[in-house]
Amino acid sequence: MISVHLEKGRVTVREARRPRRRPGFALIQLIYGGICNTDLELKRGYYGFRGTPGHEFVGQVIEADTPGLVGRRVVGDINLACGDCDWCRRGLGRHCPKRSVLGIVRQPGAFSELFTLPERNLHKVPDSLLSEHAVFAEPLAAACEIVEQVKIPPGTEVAVLGDGKLGLLIAQVLQAQGAEVHLFGRHAGKLRLASDLGIAIASPRQRTASRYAFTVDATGSAAGLAQAVSMTRPRGTVILKSTVHGQVPVDTAPVIVQEITLVGSRCGRIERALPLLRSGKVKVAPLVSDVMPLREAPRAFARAAERGVLKVLLASGGTA
Amino acid sequence: MISVHLEKGRVTVREARRPRRRPGFALIQLIYGGICNTDLELKRGYYGFRGTPGHEFVGQVIEADTPGLVGRRVVGDINLACGDCDWCRRGLGRHCPKRSVLGIVRQPGAFSELFTLPERNLHKVPDSLLSEHAVFAEPLAAACEIVEQVKIPPGTEVAVLGDGKLGLLIAQVLQAQGAEVHLFGRHAGKLRLASDLGIAIASPRQRTASRYAFTVDATGSAAGLAQAVSMTRPRGTVILKSTVHGQVPVDTAPVIVQEITLVGSRCGRIERALPLLRSGKVKVAPLVSDVMPLREAPRAFARAAERGVLKVLLASGGTA
Repeated sequence: MISVHLEKGRVTVREARRPRRRPGFALIQLIYGGICNTDLELKRGYYGFRGTPGHEFVGQVIEADTPGLVGRRVVGDINLACGDCDWCRRGLGRHCPKRSVLGIVRQPGAFSELFTLPERNLHKVPDSLLSEHAVFAEPLAAACEIVEQVKIPPGTEVAVLGDGKLGLLIAQVLQAQGAEVHLFGRHAGKLRLASDLGIAIASPRQRTASRYAFTVDATGSAAGLAQAVSMTRPRGTVILKSTVHGQVPVDTAPVIVQEITLVGSRCGRIERALPLLRSGKVKVAPLVSDVMPLREAPRAFARAAERGVLKVLLASGGTA
Repeated sequence: MISVHLEKGRVTVREARRPRRRPGFALIQLIYGGICNTDLELKRGYYGFRGTPGHEFVGQVIEADTPGLVGRRVVGDINLACGDCDWCRRGLGRHCPKRSVLGIVRQPGAFSELFTLPERNLHKVPDSLLSEHAVFAEPLAAACEIVEQVKIPPGTEVAVLGDGKLGLLIAQVLQAQGAEVHLFGRHAGKLRLASDLGIAIASPRQRTASRYAFTVDATGSAAGLAQAVSMTRPRGTVILKSTVHGQVPVDTAPVIVQEITLVGSRCGRIERALPLLRSGKVKVAPLVSDVMPLREAPRAFARAAERGVLKVLLASGGTA
């Protein structure tokens, strides 16, 4: 079987040994993997990563302890938690201090024909949901995390900064929850796409100082945070969704004087994402820029980093 | 009458004209003024300040529209709000976008034998409260603002970083509210004082990564924020109380990965501070390092900036 390998900024594809399935784990055959900005950051040296990346996937279970899982299509939580600590007991295994993270920390990732994940991390994909849509469950769950952390009253104006793949998911999730989203972006093609998805594109005059009670920074750039703070009104909330590698300069004075709250936001619950995909309230098909075979991962990574490109999917031999 | 003047980093004392009292305002004779870190920042160029500083005061009303105020000792809210906008109507005039701020923004400050402030900003000082204690009402209200913004369950361990005058007020307020405060500081004398006030001094082994659900940064230093983030556990809250001039470098990755909330916190409600002073739940007398006459303001500012010094009070001709 083949597996993607990332080391010192280089992506290669290798012939690898079939992974050993430990008790409690399922052996999964990849159907689609999604390349995320975090994967591109890993390529740049984030976490000093070396190994098989990939944490967005839909796959088919080949072997498992639970017979009912075998043959089923699944998506999965990326945090492998101990199941035993205070965090795990509170249902927040994604903050378990002992966790490993699929394709990011001490757990070989999903960009591999075969990989393993604990059965308790898996969620069955409803039959009516296409695999090329189900592969968005993980990033969509991360978008949904915002509404788990912050209560946004219906009808509230929310600024979403960033027209990338995460920004477009966040805008759709918040709109589905009743917020009045204003999307701020810089790429004409992506903004046109957002508009086709029914998202209101902000006009330059809406980039007003201190206007929004809620602002989401999904720019992926170091400048995004300061911009988000300046657009947020006193006592308002900025949600940080951009993983930027290294130090970001922040003027804390406006945060303190305006008493702004900044909320870091990461992974979410897959359970929230699947119904949004199934109902069509969040549309992901237009976000797919390319589908490439797993063995062409080096080219796919390069493509995913190009300006104007949204999601690049890696397709493997599993049944679609 | 004399007045302190601050311009281009220099503090002088000038003979000035008696201020004109506008309708709705009271004319106040200073009893004590307190020098705050913000005053020292103003001296360093914060806000491009030029004029009379001073926003911590206790004074005696000399003239007012309301006869019952004349002769009374008062402390006051520093934000002069329009009284008419959405913020003002919600009781949050301290965020009124049209506000001026006593001794900071477009309103001559309290380091003057006589100064004016709107009557609605004033709070009468109970007879049983000494003037040298009442002068702490404003900074104590700022410390109380934390418990208006964040709900801290009783018995919760809270790390307070910074053993300066604001840190010592915050530690006392949080302790009075039932929190288990661990104070982190660097100055032996101030820590001894804190200990005498009944505050638990953190041992080095309590400076553990990801330990605290709530951490307050009152270090006044650019390094405080990163340190506060590292000590806060996943989904925990960091309260920003340090006004640092300029850009602070922040690694946003741990904020996002640990889903930490950062809350900017500024002025508070004087109404919350007065009862704490009167009941003795918060002790301020030990925080006074020096009392100097108003005409010696240049020396007092220099003294307040010395290492190990806490509050320096300026005394004027009012009745104490």
